[in-house]
Amino acid sequence: MDQKRIEQLLAFHRAGLLENTIPFWLKYAIDKECGGFFNYIDYDGSVIGKDKSVWVQCRFTWLLSMLYNNVEKKADWLELAGHGLDFIRKHCFDTDGRMFFEVTRDGRPIRKRRYVFTEAFGVLAFSEYALAAKDEQALESAEKLYKLLIHYYHNPELLPPKEYPHTRRSKSHAMPMIMLAVSQQIRKASANQLYEDIIDASLKEVFEDFMHYDVKALLETVGQNGEILEGPDGRCVNPGHAIETSWFIMEESRVREDRELLEKASLILDWSLDLGWDEEFEGIKYFVDIEGKPPLQYEHDMKLWWPHNESLYAYLLAYYLTGKKKYADWYERIHKYAYSHFPDAKNGEWFKYLHRDGTVSSTIKGNRWAGPFHLPRMQFNCWKLLEQMKRSFKISANVDDAKGTIVKGLQ
Amino acid sequence: MDQKRIEQLLAFHRAGLLENTIPFWLKYAIDKECGGFFNYIDYDGSVIGKDKSVWVQCRFTWLLSMLYNNVEKKADWLELAGHGLDFIRKHCFDTDGRMFFEVTRDGRPIRKRRYVFTEAFGVLAFSEYALAAKDEQALESAEKLYKLLIHYYHNPELLPPKEYPHTRRSKSHAMPMIMLAVSQQIRKASANQLYEDIIDASLKEVFEDFMHYDVKALLETVGQNGEILEGPDGRCVNPGHAIETSWFIMEESRVREDRELLEKASLILDWSLDLGWDEEFEGIKYFVDIEGKPPLQYEHDMKLWWPHNESLYAYLLAYYLTGKKKYADWYERIHKYAYSHFPDAKNGEWFKYLHRDGTVSSTIKGNRWAGPFHLPRMQFNCWKLLEQMKRSFKISANVDDAKGTIVKGLQ
Repeated sequence: MDQKRIEQLLAFHRAGLLENTIPFWLKYAIDKECGGFFNYIDYDGSVIGKDKSVWVQCRFTWLLSMLYNNVEKKADWLELAGHGLDFIRKHCFDTDGRMFFEVTRDGRPIRKRRYVFTEAFGVLAFSEYALAAKDEQALESAEKLYKLLIHYYHNPELLPPKEYPHTRRSKSHAMPMIMLAVSQQIRKASANQLYEDIIDASLKEVFEDFMHYDVKALLETVGQNGEILEGPDGRCVNPGHAIETSWFIMEESRVREDRELLEKASLILDWSLDLGWDEEFEGIKYFVDIEGKPPLQYEHDMKLWWPHNESLYAYLLAYYLTGKKKYADWYERIHKYAYSHFPDAKNGEWFKYLHRDGTVSSTIKGNRWAGPFHLPRMQFNCWKLLEQMKRSFKISANVDDAKGTIVKGLQ
Repeated sequence: MDQKRIEQLLAFHRAGLLENTIPFWLKYAIDKECGGFFNYIDYDGSVIGKDKSVWVQCRFTWLLSMLYNNVEKKADWLELAGHGLDFIRKHCFDTDGRMFFEVTRDGRPIRKRRYVFTEAFGVLAFSEYALAAKDEQALESAEKLYKLLIHYYHNPELLPPKEYPHTRRSKSHAMPMIMLAVSQQIRKASANQLYEDIIDASLKEVFEDFMHYDVKALLETVGQNGEILEGPDGRCVNPGHAIETSWFIMEESRVREDRELLEKASLILDWSLDLGWDEEFEGIKYFVDIEGKPPLQYEHDMKLWWPHNESLYAYLLAYYLTGKKKYADWYERIHKYAYSHFPDAKNGEWFKYLHRDGTVSSTIKGNRWAGPFHLPRMQFNCWKLLEQMKRSFKISANVDDAKGTIVKGLQ
């Protein structure tokens, strides 16, 4: 990747974030009447459902606060983050301190999940807003939610089991993955050895229980002791999810200046696209089976926006940190596929759900899960990383890829 | 549809059932070692997972018993039905009388659903087997399971609610639909006014709460009093599911010689393909929105095998009962699409999951839901209906379609 390409991509992601993604959501998603944000949004910005996803309330609040903290001290952004946080505070908590999953437009509870997960996005929102608004109460809320997550992470038997535990006890990659991400986030807002301990524990769990060298995969679900489970669920990989975890680990390798972490993260990247890249139609499949058998999920071969978002940043970061050309090549290949299939040139933002062959399956821009998160986070992260690449080091044209020993970012 | 076509289709469906579908499952799905049936089966019959779906155990047991009762007194079929029922009796019940959803190969429980539904397939299996084997104990089990279903049907508040009931109370088309089907089934094995009462109640519920004349749709989910719910879930139609209900209603119109039932069932057929037929690629979409907005389900525009199975029988039956040419035309159009896309010419049976454009998305032949049920039931029902069409009446070439008053089957 030469200096010219770096500058080109830098401008591209910056403009994508500030002139396309953010304006789309600011224009269509703010509920001025009842507070909070709309999330069921069609391609042209029209609101096709008024219930509110708590994931989306939290993630948009986080995003606006993060932009305020890292891009520009825009009063609008802070005010809208506060608008989101108000709604969350008033309407998104149950009396037991846990969060709802979905509420009505005016904030009456519809559903709460049996498993803790929404709360992770609560930590993101409260901790980033605390930084932006210097709001001590928000920080306390973030810490309280974080402790609730830890409590369930340490005591999974408190949650209703998915299976009869005498027969089978499985666990999901999502849990250590989100604990890693959430600890990295809250550590920006407050200091606590606990955060480091949880990062250690979740890294250990990912490496020892979910990374399987024999089958070259980071598995989505394993047994309680990391064993590969019987059948399709046991053989299932979500390549985009594994790749997202990989860049969380790479970020930790930067903070800790730990080469071993980087090597493990790179391995996850190598495995994940070996399994998940669609050689026939390009793009990243949503679910794959480590033995090439058919996965159970109906949507297994669809191309979703977010694995492509996570991969763009992950492979760019891997290139920056390792200097290996193969990661720049992957970045370009994913970039080419993503930008020739996902963006909605007319209305802005990305289509979120494509068929395997790259045609649009749903025109939806937002739903219970999709909202202003993966795309703008990728655009922000790539932009900032490219600034760093531009500023602090010029990648040599003759990096010795074969040796793979030059860790630029960690030097 | 002329006599020649009727004879051609008759031979086609009979051969499809007896020479293709049944042999596939007999060859690959019998677990001789641990009892019961395998259900995670790939295109070539290979077993890709050994856990056992209780839906599939029950449905295959029902099918084998039904073939024994209605096709031929083959000792093999009865023996294998008993093989299925043994496994169900030994391993598929919880101590509270409810059934598990999935068990291990050797019958240890993995999962039980919060909602009653698996039990409906239990009624099918036990009642049909009771008829085949003249097994009083099986009939008692069927009646007991049926009463358990009724108990929850009459007292839905006993089941964990999907939403916070103070905010919203929804109900699903699946419940009256399955109560109708299950009552029609158990009535073959024993007489009880209760069955007729439940059929009355479920028909009333479908007509009054789920059929919405203003939007011309049988909705999948409505409010407790039949009101259309806010947002995408409230606007959702599953055309194949509505069409399946329609033929259950048509069957009832035959039993009761009730023209009004037939007219309502026809209306459901008209509405469902108006909404669900894919004019661009042919075939029936899995989920549609009554306003043409994007449905939430990722798989919304996929072509699944079972809506096509249910439709083939429903439109053939509608043609037989009403004499209206449009239903014969629809039958042929669906037949043409289905038989040029779903069958696996090399290995037998059908592919189950196609992309919107008709290409195969998954090579799977069986999973937690897919198994020997919709396809062989359609083949059997079409075969027997075509025998009736051949035998008992010759459809006049000059039926007055415009009047639509000639109800052949009810005359």
